[in-house]
Parts: sequence; structure tokens; C-alpha cells
Amino acid sequence: MSELYFDNSSTTRVCREAAEKVMETMTENYGNPSSLHSLGFRAERAMDEARAAVAARLGAEKEEIYFTSGGTESNNIALFGAAHALKKRGNHIVTTQIEHPSVLNVMKRLEQEGFRVTYLKPDSFGHITAEQITGAVNGETILVSLMCVNNEVGSILPVEAAAQAVRAAGSPALVHVDAVQAFGKLPLRPRQAGIDLMSVSAHKIHGPKGVGALYVRRGVHLEPHVFGGGQEKNLRPGTEGMPLIAGFGAAVGALPEARAELRTMEELNAYCRGKLETIPEVTFNSAPDALPYILNFSAVGVRAETMLHFLSDRGIYLSSGSACSRGRESHVLSAMGLARERIASALRLSFSRYNTKEEIDVFAGALREGLSGLTRRPL
Amino acid sequence: MSELYFDNSSTTRVCREAAEKVMETMTENYGNPSSLHSLGFRAERAMDEARAAVAARLGAEKEEIYFTSGGTESNNIALFGAAHALKKRGNHIVTTQIEHPSVLNVMKRLEQEGFRVTYLKPDSFGHITAEQITGAVNGETILVSLMCVNNEVGSILPVEAAAQAVRAAGSPALVHVDAVQAFGKLPLRPRQAGIDLMSVSAHKIHGPKGVGALYVRRGVHLEPHVFGGGQEKNLRPGTEGMPLIAGFGAAVGALPEARAELRTMEELNAYCRGKLETIPEVTFNSAPDALPYILNFSAVGVRAETMLHFLSDRGIYLSSGSACSRGRESHVLSAMGLARERIASALRLSFSRYNTKEEIDVFAGALREGLSGLTRRPL
Repeated sequence: MSELYFDNSSTTRVCREAAEKVMETMTENYGNPSSLHSLGFRAERAMDEARAAVAARLGAEKEEIYFTSGGTESNNIALFGAAHALKKRGNHIVTTQIEHPSVLNVMKRLEQEGFRVTYLKPDSFGHITAEQITGAVNGETILVSLMCVNNEVGSILPVEAAAQAVRAAGSPALVHVDAVQAFGKLPLRPRQAGIDLMSVSAHKIHGPKGVGALYVRRGVHLEPHVFGGGQEKNLRPGTEGMPLIAGFGAAVGALPEARAELRTMEELNAYCRGKLETIPEVTFNSAPDALPYILNFSAVGVRAETMLHFLSDRGIYLSSGSACSRGRESHVLSAMGLARERIASALRLSFSRYNTKEEIDVFAGALREGLSGLTRRPL
Repeated sequence: MSELYFDNSSTTRVCREAAEKVMETMTENYGNPSSLHSLGFRAERAMDEARAAVAARLGAEKEEIYFTSGGTESNNIALFGAAHALKKRGNHIVTTQIEHPSVLNVMKRLEQEGFRVTYLKPDSFGHITAEQITGAVNGETILVSLMCVNNEVGSILPVEAAAQAVRAAGSPALVHVDAVQAFGKLPLRPRQAGIDLMSVSAHKIHGPKGVGALYVRRGVHLEPHVFGGGQEKNLRPGTEGMPLIAGFGAAVGALPEARAELRTMEELNAYCRGKLETIPEVTFNSAPDALPYILNFSAVGVRAETMLHFLSDRGIYLSSGSACSRGRESHVLSAMGLARERIASALRLSFSRYNTKEEIDVFAGALREGLSGLTRRPL
């Protein structure tokens, strides 16, 4: 049975370039970058190359890139690091209701520590406006954390407004952007946009799971959250996960030019919308201006888990929201104010460069089949 | 030029079994274990297998194993988690002066938070006695953290004495063991030894760099240090680094039986000691009862970095101590009270199952050459 994989915002298949680089790093260039011999130096060079690849994609300097074990760790290091570094300057933080759990759950902990957090509420398509951000930031604000692209519905947040709001309010705040779903897909230039901290991950762009990076603008001080042998300038100690770091670099190197791929995705997304809008039960949860890699819709009448199972049996893989909130009601769709039956039947398609229109035809057919064949229960 | 790799306590070459498993997990079984479709379920099964392999090696239950990004993260999660969970029961912690930086630097932070830490001092071979541990633990002690095998000199610490000391003192302390250098090399049974928390790592046993695990005895509560989407029962959230986790499991599966390999290593170590003790400049820093995988000695008269460079040029790779304290004077040898000239000229050989006696012959010859040819400067 062939596999149709539409769950690329959960994770991706590792591309050939990255997989080969991981293999080489495990079996040939296997030194510890901290070792004082030529095998160590070779490993250090491989890390340097990977760092340069990630930096180039962000228009950043190599020294501004810190490797981590993924988006969650990047977010934890950035948020705890910024809040603890600036706690003497103020205690107010701004974020949104639709962030990833690795932001929202850090915020909860920071609230327990005494910080006051404002959570901006999205509209019914997952939009947050620049005005909302400006209205929330004040002189006491020490941190603004926004995602660039929402992982469930693909809404694009006006992250550049955060830096402007901070300037306008004369606040000492650092601006953090969780760019896990945007990296490699939208042109990102944190420095130009006045962003201090940016989290990215390898496994959403056909790199391996278990590695990510944090951009830290030169001159920004973070209080360390993890302690050890000094690696990554004390911000992320521990022997570097070299195979994955090198694989991350190779995956970035293999990325198509962002704007060209974006156009391909717009076409694929529009094709898919066209197919789905002929199905009466379908309502779109992603706005027309969402990032085209993500298409969230409700197939009202059939519970999402039931439909996922039905499609999975046919080798068609997608998601009922984010993989990270497995089994729980989507906090994003709830914040968007969607009716219960739409939330319970919400499905997320997430595309990558390996998807085709033919695959979408097969998917749309299977969805119709599921809608007509599956038992409908009140949701 | 052939490579002679004697730096296995820094890191190891990934074995074939592990490398192939990593590859398979990147390109075929690439699902997200949290995804609700069959590709996700397959990934979850692969994680389960890896967990079972690590658990079996520790005589533990699968549910007691939490995957992390390596020894440093395991130590951070264990130490912060235990200290913060028990801070209402007492504020005293016991550890040693010869722990890894990922323990010592967490301890420094805990001291800043108000905890009182006792650092046990080793003898001149890096030994810590059971009596020292018993003498340090009292009713106020909430945490005892000891390494099982010291990474620089191979001394074996009496970790089972910690649990006895805690019981005898009637203290609420949790016992943590950093077993990064012992895992796969000594038979470890944390539950039987009364150990609550144990850190292990893949890349010291021919698994990949970037993955480790923390054993948490069933029933032990740790305060989380990292926050996110709930993976690893909230103790280590973030999309699981599946390729490395699966590779870790495969590396554990490929381990030789510990006692048999230990005998091989004893033979190799004795052979090496025999060769080196005929060199007048050599003084051993590892005790005769040290773990035979590690042999630390000083080649007095030549600075370690100079000798490492000389040997590296000949394709012979070893270490001047731990890779993690790159360039700094060894805190372990200092704590052992060694004279400055011995510390400055200390070299660490660390063996694995891939080393041979023939390689040791080549090494010993090159060392003699270096000692007679290299300029001697006052150290």
C-alpha cells in the first residue's frame, strides 16, 4: 500500500541529503567537537558548517546560532532565559492564546514565579493583529513571545509588530519568535525585523527529529537554564548531538528557495481547497491568507479520530490538530471560538515538497467515502 | 593513515547496528510517535523497543526510563527536579568534588537558590569512601548525587553506600547516580541498590551523540524543569528524537555481556600498564582498582596539549582529561591533590571493544618518541 503523507507539520521524512550526512557523522566523522585532536577538530568543522547553513537561512551570523535538541528546548531556553535575565526590569510578558504548549506551559510556570502574562486572543481564523500587540506592550513588559505561523491553522502572525510595539512603549522587552512552522517556508530575517530570539527546528523541514536551534541576537544576554560543560557558550551545554546537527545543516542546504516553494504550495493548497469545497460537510478553519503549507478544515459529522483511523487504514496520514496535543481538545480552535462540533471534527493537512495533486485527488476521494460510510454520532 | 582511537570516554564511533537503525528511523519509520495514524503508532513501537532495551540493561521497568538529549540533560532534570520537589523537606545536598560539570554547575546554581551543598573530597586516586558518604548525610539531606565511575581517572565510587546512608540518617533524600561512564560497562541495578535516579548516555557505548536517558524509580516525583507538549510524561517534553532514540536502543542491544567485556578490558589495561611502566617519565593517575576502560597517567616533562598534538599528527587520538573541560586545568586531578606538573602532563586513554594490543604497542612507541623528541618546558 502506498503511503500518502499529509502530516508534515507534525514531522517529516528525512531527506536523502540529511540522512547521508547523519550517517557519515556517526561512522566516519564521529569525534567530539571538544576533543583536542584532529578527529575533534573535524567534528568542530562539521558543526561550524551546519551553523553557517542555519545562520545563512536567517540572515544571521554564525555566532548567533545555538544548537538545541529541538523547538521545545529552544523555546524553554529563550523564555526562561529572557524572563530571568530581565526580572529586575519589569514583570510583564505578552504572548498569545494560540502558542505551542512549549511556550504556554513555560508561561504558566513563569506566572507561578510571579510574572504577569497577557495572552492575546485570536479572531475566528487564528489571526492576531498588530494593534493587539501594540495595545498590550507597556513600559513594564520584559518579553514578547509570538509564533510566526500557527501550527494548527497556519495563520501568520505580525511578528514584526512586536519589535515596533516594544520600541514605541520604551520597554526593555526582548522579542522572541517561535518560528518552528515558518523556518524554511517564509523568508525570515530576525535582525532586520528587530527580533532578539527565534526558535527553529529541523524535523519540520525534512531534517531529523531531535535537533533545533535558537537564534540569539548578538549582545542579548540570557540567563542559562541548563548547566554543564560550557558547550554552546554555556547556553546549551552537553556533548553536541553531532549526527543530528550535521543532518540539520544538510537539510537546510537542501531546502528549495523559499519563495519558489511557497508558490508551489499556494497552487497545491488552492487545488486542495477546490476539491474540498465541493464536499458539503467541509468548512475551512484555515483563513485564505494562511501559510499554504497548512490546511485545517472540519468534516462535520464525523469525529476527527474516527476519520483519522479510517484514512490511516487506507495509508493516508494526517492529523486532528497538532501531534503534541494528542487526544486533547485543540486549544487553538477553542481560542478561535469555533463551535464544538467543528472542533471535534477538525482535520489538518500539512504539505511538503514531496506532495502532489494526484495524492490530493486520492485523499479527497477517501474523505468522501469516509463521510458517507462512517457512523455519525452527535459530537 | 590508520586511526588509533583511544578517546572512547569522550565519545565513540557509532556501531553498525545503531547506525543502521538511525538510518531506518529517518527514512522509513519517520512518523511522530504522538501522531494518531499508523506511521505514528509504528514510531511509538520503535520507541517502546528502545525503552525496553535500556530498561533491561538496568534491571528496570520500561516506565522508569525517560529519554533525554544526553547525560547533561539527564543530570539537570534529575538534580533540579529532585531539589525542587523536596525543598520543603530540607535544604542539604551531598555530592563530590570530582563530579562532571553538568552536576557541579547545577550544584552551584542550587547554592545560589539557597541550598547547602557538601562536596566530598577524593583521595589521591579519586576514591570516595562509604564512610565519607555516611558521615555527610543527615536528616536535612534531600539529595545525594554521586557518579558511578569518574570520567577522568576511572575510579569507582561506592554508590550503593548512598542509599544506606540515607536510610541510616532517616533522611528524605533522593539518591542520584551519574552512570554515564559506567553504563554498559558495569552491571547496574539501580532499584536493587536503592538508587532513585540514574543518568546514562548513548554516545559512550557506540550509540549516537545527542541522546541519553534518565532512570526514575517508580513512585519518585520530580519537579519538571522543561515544559512543553507532555512527552515523556511531562518530564522531558518535545517531539522525541526518534532516530537517536532508536539508535540508542540498538547500541544497547549490540553491547557485549558486561562481565565478559570487563575481563577483556582488564587484560588490555594490564597490557598497557605493562608497556607504560617501562617508561621512566610515566606515573599512573588511575588506581589499580579503577574501571579498566580508563587509564590516566602523566608523562611528566611534556605538556599534555603538546603531546596530544604530536600524537594526533600520527593518527593517535586520546585526551588530556575530559573533553568537556577543554583547555581548563582538570578539577578532578586538582581535587586529588596531584602536583601541578602531573596535572599539566596528564593524558587519558579510554578503551572500547574495538581497541587491540597491537594498537597499544603503536601508541607506546609514539609516546616514547614524543617524550624523547619534544621540547621540555617547565610546566
